[in-house]
Amino acid sequence: MAIPVALIQGASRGIGLQFCKTLLTGPKNNVVIATCRNPSSAQNLQILKDEHPKSLHIFPIDVTNESQIQQTASDISLQFKNLDLLINCAAILHPSGKGETSLRDVSSQGVLETLSINTVGPLLMAKYFSPLLLKGCGGFGKATENQQHKAVLVNMSAKVGSITDNGLGGWYSYRMAKAALNMATKNLSIELGRGKNKVICVSLHPGTVDTDLSKPYHKNVPKLFTPEYSVDCLLKVIESLEIDDSGKFFTYDRTQMQY
Amino acid sequence: MAIPVALIQGASRGIGLQFCKTLLTGPKNNVVIATCRNPSSAQNLQILKDEHPKSLHIFPIDVTNESQIQQTASDISLQFKNLDLLINCAAILHPSGKGETSLRDVSSQGVLETLSINTVGPLLMAKYFSPLLLKGCGGFGKATENQQHKAVLVNMSAKVGSITDNGLGGWYSYRMAKAALNMATKNLSIELGRGKNKVICVSLHPGTVDTDLSKPYHKNVPKLFTPEYSVDCLLKVIESLEIDDSGKFFTYDRTQMQY
Repeated sequence: MAIPVALIQGASRGIGLQFCKTLLTGPKNNVVIATCRNPSSAQNLQILKDEHPKSLHIFPIDVTNESQIQQTASDISLQFKNLDLLINCAAILHPSGKGETSLRDVSSQGVLETLSINTVGPLLMAKYFSPLLLKGCGGFGKATENQQHKAVLVNMSAKVGSITDNGLGGWYSYRMAKAALNMATKNLSIELGRGKNKVICVSLHPGTVDTDLSKPYHKNVPKLFTPEYSVDCLLKVIESLEIDDSGKFFTYDRTQMQY
Repeated sequence: MAIPVALIQGASRGIGLQFCKTLLTGPKNNVVIATCRNPSSAQNLQILKDEHPKSLHIFPIDVTNESQIQQTASDISLQFKNLDLLINCAAILHPSGKGETSLRDVSSQGVLETLSINTVGPLLMAKYFSPLLLKGCGGFGKATENQQHKAVLVNMSAKVGSITDNGLGGWYSYRMAKAALNMATKNLSIELGRGKNKVICVSLHPGTVDTDLSKPYHKNVPKLFTPEYSVDCLLKVIESLEIDDSGKFFTYDRTQMQY
């Protein structure tokens, strides 16, 4: 069987970095393509590269730069014939580092920058990498008796991106960006589920994880996960996915969320 | 009782223009504040102004220009002590005039421009006009025995902005923008529903209406509404709204939509 190839976007830290670590040390001998804005200053990723020189490949992608995404996708497709998994991880809470507590904190620039990174970025990744995903070997997810998908596309979403579940308000930019991302996932599941070659597309909520993004809020979190634990859970969910799950929104423990 | 004051954002044509017409000719003697990007070139609005010189007031607002929204809100608050209704109407399908049929049509610039007008604009309107809405006289919507709201805020959404209902895909920018707008509505309903003075906030789907926005798709629409009919339906929904409806998403016939 072909070696599974996973692309982790936003891999320099947090959940993205942990996906790389776990995928490189698992039993599957995966090949990992890690992308981030500045590979040269991504110290933890470079350390990982020293440990896994053959199976880890690092490329530059700033998701707000469409022509760079296109160029890197073209570069990657010269070296790799297919992708089995794409995980979009890069996200910000808000350019200030703190979610808006009220309308007073809302600004056009803050909302648009958050949307650009958290929502438009993952969609552009899907645009330029879907050709490689559609040629995937089904290295992740679960084949059923009748159906075999080619690849899995994961958009890292968040529970606070559920409109139905929203009882507290605030965090305008982040919530709106994740709701729009969930719509992108649904649209992608339809477009990439139409032909003979199918890509399973899902939104996943990782729990509240001990990363830079959530740092200002750690003291209020009853269950703060380590990145290791969250990624172990998420990979279990990913390995369980069938074509019928495409378009859905799951938590780390595979509970289906309403949009 | 005080004369109800309604602000219609995006009033130069389509549904926004029709809201102005209907509100000015109804039995209630409303005062209407109409905003659009270029009042001087908004011919139909100027004709309406000639017919209703005392009750129609036109102000310039380009929702992509935050400082202009702030300035106009400040100008309006010199003339008006309160607002009873704010309807955010301005929207585009996509800068090209046509929704994306597939990922091939998706571009960073197209998505961000659509988000800026359809999503960020309404949120900025809420930011700068909520002080006037919180001083409203309850001129629209339905008071119950125990609860009286101050005003109603309507974000014109669309059925295709329901993630749950999305079965066809495509129209990435528009769908994502309306899903994010529905999240904004939910957040606003929480923030503006917290204090003693409450603003009812809803997302409404107008049906497919004979306007410039939907023009490229008219031949595929089984039920194409006139703006008059759609606005009559929407105003009936608005007049039926109670505080418990805040945050919800309704169609023109008051069916509640899932997000």
